[in-house]
Amino acid sequence: MASPVTPTPLLKDELDIVIPTIRNLDFLEMWRPFFQQYHLIIVQDGDPSKVIKVPQGFDYELYNRNDINRILGPKASCISFKDSACRCFGYMVSKKKYIFTIDDDCFVAKDPSGNDINALEQHIKNLLSPSTPFFFNTLYDPYREGTDFVRGYPFSLREGVPTAVSHGLWLNIPDYDAPTQLVKPRERNTRFVDAVLTIPKGTLFPMCGMNLAFDRELIGPAMYFGLMGDGQPIGRYDDMWAGWCIKVICDHLGWGVKTGLPYIWHSKASNPFVNLKKEYKGIYWQEELIPFFQAAVLPKECTTVQSCYKELSKQVKAKLGKVDDYFIKLADAMVTWIDAWDELNPSGQLPNGKSRSHSASVPAAAKATNSDSIVE
Amino acid sequence: MASPVTPTPLLKDELDIVIPTIRNLDFLEMWRPFFQQYHLIIVQDGDPSKVIKVPQGFDYELYNRNDINRILGPKASCISFKDSACRCFGYMVSKKKYIFTIDDDCFVAKDPSGNDINALEQHIKNLLSPSTPFFFNTLYDPYREGTDFVRGYPFSLREGVPTAVSHGLWLNIPDYDAPTQLVKPRERNTRFVDAVLTIPKGTLFPMCGMNLAFDRELIGPAMYFGLMGDGQPIGRYDDMWAGWCIKVICDHLGWGVKTGLPYIWHSKASNPFVNLKKEYKGIYWQEELIPFFQAAVLPKECTTVQSCYKELSKQVKAKLGKVDDYFIKLADAMVTWIDAWDELNPSGQLPNGKSRSHSASVPAAAKATNSDSIVE
Repeated sequence: MASPVTPTPLLKDELDIVIPTIRNLDFLEMWRPFFQQYHLIIVQDGDPSKVIKVPQGFDYELYNRNDINRILGPKASCISFKDSACRCFGYMVSKKKYIFTIDDDCFVAKDPSGNDINALEQHIKNLLSPSTPFFFNTLYDPYREGTDFVRGYPFSLREGVPTAVSHGLWLNIPDYDAPTQLVKPRERNTRFVDAVLTIPKGTLFPMCGMNLAFDRELIGPAMYFGLMGDGQPIGRYDDMWAGWCIKVICDHLGWGVKTGLPYIWHSKASNPFVNLKKEYKGIYWQEELIPFFQAAVLPKECTTVQSCYKELSKQVKAKLGKVDDYFIKLADAMVTWIDAWDELNPSGQLPNGKSRSHSASVPAAAKATNSDSIVE
Repeated sequence: MASPVTPTPLLKDELDIVIPTIRNLDFLEMWRPFFQQYHLIIVQDGDPSKVIKVPQGFDYELYNRNDINRILGPKASCISFKDSACRCFGYMVSKKKYIFTIDDDCFVAKDPSGNDINALEQHIKNLLSPSTPFFFNTLYDPYREGTDFVRGYPFSLREGVPTAVSHGLWLNIPDYDAPTQLVKPRERNTRFVDAVLTIPKGTLFPMCGMNLAFDRELIGPAMYFGLMGDGQPIGRYDDMWAGWCIKVICDHLGWGVKTGLPYIWHSKASNPFVNLKKEYKGIYWQEELIPFFQAAVLPKECTTVQSCYKELSKQVKAKLGKVDDYFIKLADAMVTWIDAWDELNPSGQLPNGKSRSHSASVPAAAKATNSDSIVE
């Protein structure tokens, strides 16, 4: 939806924007009207000695690999290197209630009327309105202006449930895998679908990390992007992995996941040959992963995201360990991730979505002298 | 989607248009460019002595209550009277592979470019392309031009499954229940959402009969609109009932249900006070019906729609009979419906979607001299 830039943006002090990058962040210029009043967490991937330039006027903290290693110590092993999966470190060090994460090759898209789309504002609307995972509403998001629940929608379900995740889409370059990129090199997404919908309970989806927002207090500890890239047999499945995990956990805990608006403009297709190399194991592994996640059941005793996630890691080890040893390593990394999360977020995750004090913000890594100052 | 009117329409000899009505069918004038080459089955509700005028040039057969009673004999008890649920009689007497049904207060809608929408053509496209009920594709219908499966979509699921039902939407007057109509008398649906999507397996939805198409050979015997209207304690749940039944059966048999495009223009809101009287039992009954259908499991032995539907009728009687005696009567009517279906369609329903001969078409009721000529 087109929206004018608001003078006081929504959730200004309750949301961090997390950007993984290996290059200067010139792309932020186009986002200035929408992002400048928010705080950025930049996770620098690759060579930590490289200097990443951030356009003037943005409020940010930046972490490179040295920072990650210093802050997490041995637990830094759970954070991927040379893969955008490293972005999840930013989720962990944030102290805000909400996270928006975006790739640095994504720009402001236009709606069919030619207006700039304020993607962040739409994500916030998605997160602040309930979800409806238990029954499908044929007019899509029933909470949107001009829409409601249709005839036959049970009244007992019309309050909805808290929304944990808002998954946005992409105009121009669609998020295709390497085989599809190779087969359809010129395909562009030009269709603006003016809808937001809740992905029903029990249904998995391919979550893309390019344009994604979530309630960190609700689902943050499950938003782990796995072990990808350097030293790992796989890449480009970081967001997929996280998406399958968060969906199973949201379904278990009764929270919603939305997809649809907002669109961003995805400018640059990644190299399909490089992607194929990263993906090929994932392409056949996912044939085992999807049935695994479709069948995954969490016990009633798991009432926090952390306990759900640790339980899921056990099931990953037990069932996917047979597929490849990689999943044993990944299951261990899932536990390490939770331990690191709890260490950096000692007050614990509030499972009921109540807001907590945000006064104890993490100092910028650039100013931190040792990890103690980070973990408070 | 805007589409030019094609000189030779798709599936011209394989699709019937079923219209329930109590009035002259002037609304067909607007549909002439899209419907004139198809065969219409008009089910006249209410007083059979009233003469329904059909605009010249349309090829149709018309059934009133006397025809229904004559053709079905005692089994006519399963066909509702004074309720648009009577339309399902038209599904039963058709001999075509596909059905499109539309209400007589629905007109041709325009797409955002101002072009007339050929609703029937879009329904046919929906029905002729596969569905994807097992995993959600974030770019919606992956078979549509300019779109595909996104990264992370399992390749083993990309063939899709046969599409049994195409559920279209409505611009202008949305399909609201009486309470919502009363609370929001001026709400109009102006949002054109340019998408078709498969409703995931395991998810129920409120199916509206206003603008609906289906593969009669696949799912026809389950498309029973129940007992509504005259002599019944409930109305306006005919399509909902059918929607819950067909979804459970499609999920069991591995077929898809799509919703979204095409839009029609719904011109006239029905009277909310009258609707409230028809609906009020349904409004609280549905709180029991939805959990019932969500939990319904059909045994593996049920491999035809008929056997699924009879099994469902048993479960309705056993479990919903406790809610109200009405459901015992409805369960019996479900069995009568199947018996009547099989009588009028003696070659049986082919569960695998193979096409069969359409040469044995039902003669127009107006020409039929007795029920034998109808049941061949």
